[in-house]
Amino acid sequence: MQIVRAKYENEIFYGDLHEGKVTRYDGSPFVVWENTEEVYDLEEIELLAPVLPSKVVAIAKNYAKHAAEMGLPEYSENMPENPIIFIKPSTSVIGSGQNIKYPTIGEHVDIEAELALVISKVSKNIDKNNWMDHVLGITIANDLSERVLQGKTGHFTRAKGFDTFCPLGPYIQTEFVDSPELQIKSYVNGDLKQDGNTRDMMFKIGEILEFISSIMTLLPGDVILTGTPEGVSKVERGDEIKIEIDTLGTQINTVE
Amino acid sequence: MQIVRAKYENEIFYGDLHEGKVTRYDGSPFVVWENTEEVYDLEEIELLAPVLPSKVVAIAKNYAKHAAEMGLPEYSENMPENPIIFIKPSTSVIGSGQNIKYPTIGEHVDIEAELALVISKVSKNIDKNNWMDHVLGITIANDLSERVLQGKTGHFTRAKGFDTFCPLGPYIQTEFVDSPELQIKSYVNGDLKQDGNTRDMMFKIGEILEFISSIMTLLPGDVILTGTPEGVSKVERGDEIKIEIDTLGTQINTVE
Repeated sequence: MQIVRAKYENEIFYGDLHEGKVTRYDGSPFVVWENTEEVYDLEEIELLAPVLPSKVVAIAKNYAKHAAEMGLPEYSENMPENPIIFIKPSTSVIGSGQNIKYPTIGEHVDIEAELALVISKVSKNIDKNNWMDHVLGITIANDLSERVLQGKTGHFTRAKGFDTFCPLGPYIQTEFVDSPELQIKSYVNGDLKQDGNTRDMMFKIGEILEFISSIMTLLPGDVILTGTPEGVSKVERGDEIKIEIDTLGTQINTVE
Repeated sequence: MQIVRAKYENEIFYGDLHEGKVTRYDGSPFVVWENTEEVYDLEEIELLAPVLPSKVVAIAKNYAKHAAEMGLPEYSENMPENPIIFIKPSTSVIGSGQNIKYPTIGEHVDIEAELALVISKVSKNIDKNNWMDHVLGITIANDLSERVLQGKTGHFTRAKGFDTFCPLGPYIQTEFVDSPELQIKSYVNGDLKQDGNTRDMMFKIGEILEFISSIMTLLPGDVILTGTPEGVSKVERGDEIKIEIDTLGTQINTVE
């Protein structure tokens, strides 16, 4: 199933995207929902971020070659005991098709294409072997990052927390496997920039969820970003960013 | 007015605390609410965190003497251009009177008593001179921090993001002034540990709100922590933490 959130005549609802049409549901996939049998063409509706998380928890440098391009070539050999985590605020989330706002003080904004997990239920102390029981589905995320600000303090919250800096979607794919080997590609104005595979994650999905949920309770709809492969690329105002991940469709956003 | 959130017979509501009694309101102070004229004794109800924020945004090292005790004695002379910010997840919030859970992997947990601001409305690009228009009221926060984990990576999200690591309350005080000079005192098992004053903040409230809201939209009920004065103190399981701030009452929490 491919779960979307959509707007039609000022009403917002969840739906199932199938063969270019959206079937409207009442309620929410996190609690209880019901098929209304109403079907819309994609042109009739506006797709929104497929979920509104209470928090987005992300991990830094989870692909060795990305760590190397960020100036940490030793990272893959001296892999830290645990991932470094940070939080992107819910206010950074937008959907595929919505515009990214370039910060007034921005100087160097990079894209980071990532596999994202959508939590299905209240979860604390997840066992890494049972992670699939806690995930509703997977989707595409872009962990936009302002590098000058990131470099100034070494901290992530400002550099990665701007409004619109977390495009999600277009949909939540509820079919996924334990060890996904999904190709992640990102393009800027049609030029291929990132071309990695989720099999190269250093911390695996189960380990990431076990670690984060040992610290903080994850709530239904919370989103976990699993790190970006190498090739992160600078974008400017007017650029079109396209991210493709196998089985997850295509996310397209323009920088305002 | 002193706004509380309370539970009575499995119903949760906002109320006005006055002379030891709570008047129940329908609705929310952030949208619209109405006095029900129902009044409860404090013994009849359970006080909760006075607000459930979508996010808690905090700033690091905003009192020169605290920066010094953290090993940054030069901080007050070479004050950074901007504050360093971090996010505590909503799941870290508890109320006064609820228990703090000592993390299984915890080794050195410090308390940090702070003045907290509760945002009243959707706010982006706040003008520092108009900050009072964006704040419903002020309350007490404890920015609990695990120092060993904080030291390992230099990052704050794990060290400060554990469940129960952000006690708020007991109430939101809606009477406050532009440049508050409020004494902040914290005690562990009755021993005075911190004794500072909000007049010694390096970044002032207006500057903090202007800075944070230039990055991310603040939502009604979001909470901003303004930094802790010197004297942060280690706590152990079983300890009772008491924080007093002028006009904001007393926050008491026990470490489980």
